[in-house]
Amino acid sequence: MARNCNFDRQEKLIEAMELFWQQGYANTSIADLVAHLGINRFSLYNSYGDKQRLYREALDYYLEHVSFPPVEAILHPRAALGEVRDYISRFIALQRNQQYGCFLQNAVLEHGLTEPFVQQASARLFSRLEQAFARALTNAGQTGELKADVVPEKVSRFLLLQLQGIRVLGKAGQYQVLSDATEVLLDYLSTLKSKL
Amino acid sequence: MARNCNFDRQEKLIEAMELFWQQGYANTSIADLVAHLGINRFSLYNSYGDKQRLYREALDYYLEHVSFPPVEAILHPRAALGEVRDYISRFIALQRNQQYGCFLQNAVLEHGLTEPFVQQASARLFSRLEQAFARALTNAGQTGELKADVVPEKVSRFLLLQLQGIRVLGKAGQYQVLSDATEVLLDYLSTLKSKL
Repeated sequence: MARNCNFDRQEKLIEAMELFWQQGYANTSIADLVAHLGINRFSLYNSYGDKQRLYREALDYYLEHVSFPPVEAILHPRAALGEVRDYISRFIALQRNQQYGCFLQNAVLEHGLTEPFVQQASARLFSRLEQAFARALTNAGQTGELKADVVPEKVSRFLLLQLQGIRVLGKAGQYQVLSDATEVLLDYLSTLKSKL
Repeated sequence: MARNCNFDRQEKLIEAMELFWQQGYANTSIADLVAHLGINRFSLYNSYGDKQRLYREALDYYLEHVSFPPVEAILHPRAALGEVRDYISRFIALQRNQQYGCFLQNAVLEHGLTEPFVQQASARLFSRLEQAFARALTNAGQTGELKADVVPEKVSRFLLLQLQGIRVLGKAGQYQVLSDATEVLLDYLSTLKSKL
């Protein structure tokens, strides 16, 4: 790793993440990275290793700094059904702003089958989301907010599936379809409530 | 277009579709296609035009011969709620066999934002699915099989979202997650039934 370099290593990592997020792995050449980051090829190799290592680091950065923070913030240890709804509503609204979709989902569809680190990263994200949903639903169950037949471990996986579907329709630019579909999803969430 | 060629044009188109489906567009070179199809570069250009035109034709072939037939067969004009459930159950089961996911979804995530024909193809598939679901739900409503508050046009879009999420979890190889998530989905479908 370079001891000295005349650029901010993290700032350039973020720029690389954005480029891979937008264009994918195969479609981003070293020349594209050199042009986008504004650093020369030698500095790029010297600081980040080869294209694959830079991509892995960018994907990890994405998980830690883009995916996980809202999960931690909204689905916090004392979260319940209201926070599940908040997280999903926020996620739906996000699609118009993040038109490139989810970097991780893009990666899974591009080469999750051939790149074990992509599959590991997706397993990490999915498991974090699923656990956060399950904990919030369990909290809701303990206070009697939830219908007795709701199984938090299964509903949390169903919600993970919703996030994946929302991302795809968002990336396809199908905003009206997304709006109607998620109206039904939010109605479904309401049906989980016990009739106290 | 070539008048004569010593290979079956459709057979080679199917092989090209399989390669693009597995590897994506950017990651498939002309050299890969030449090797996979077992025809020379000249014949390839002569029969299919350039790589992009071959890809478009492969994507259209996928829609017409892979995506649409089960929609037409299961969600036929007289289909109702049982057929919606059948279609979705079959689609869930399919994921273990179609490990490359959906060619169209892969295409949307790879370059739907920059290639208008990909967005058009996805709009075509989404609209076909949505209409087939909506028609089946409308049929179910007319025979009193459906709860009165179910809006076919919205639930059909919700189901389209489910298909997208199922594909992503399938491609990520998350079969246990998928199984739990879709158990909740099938339970949801049961709640659409009127209590006759």
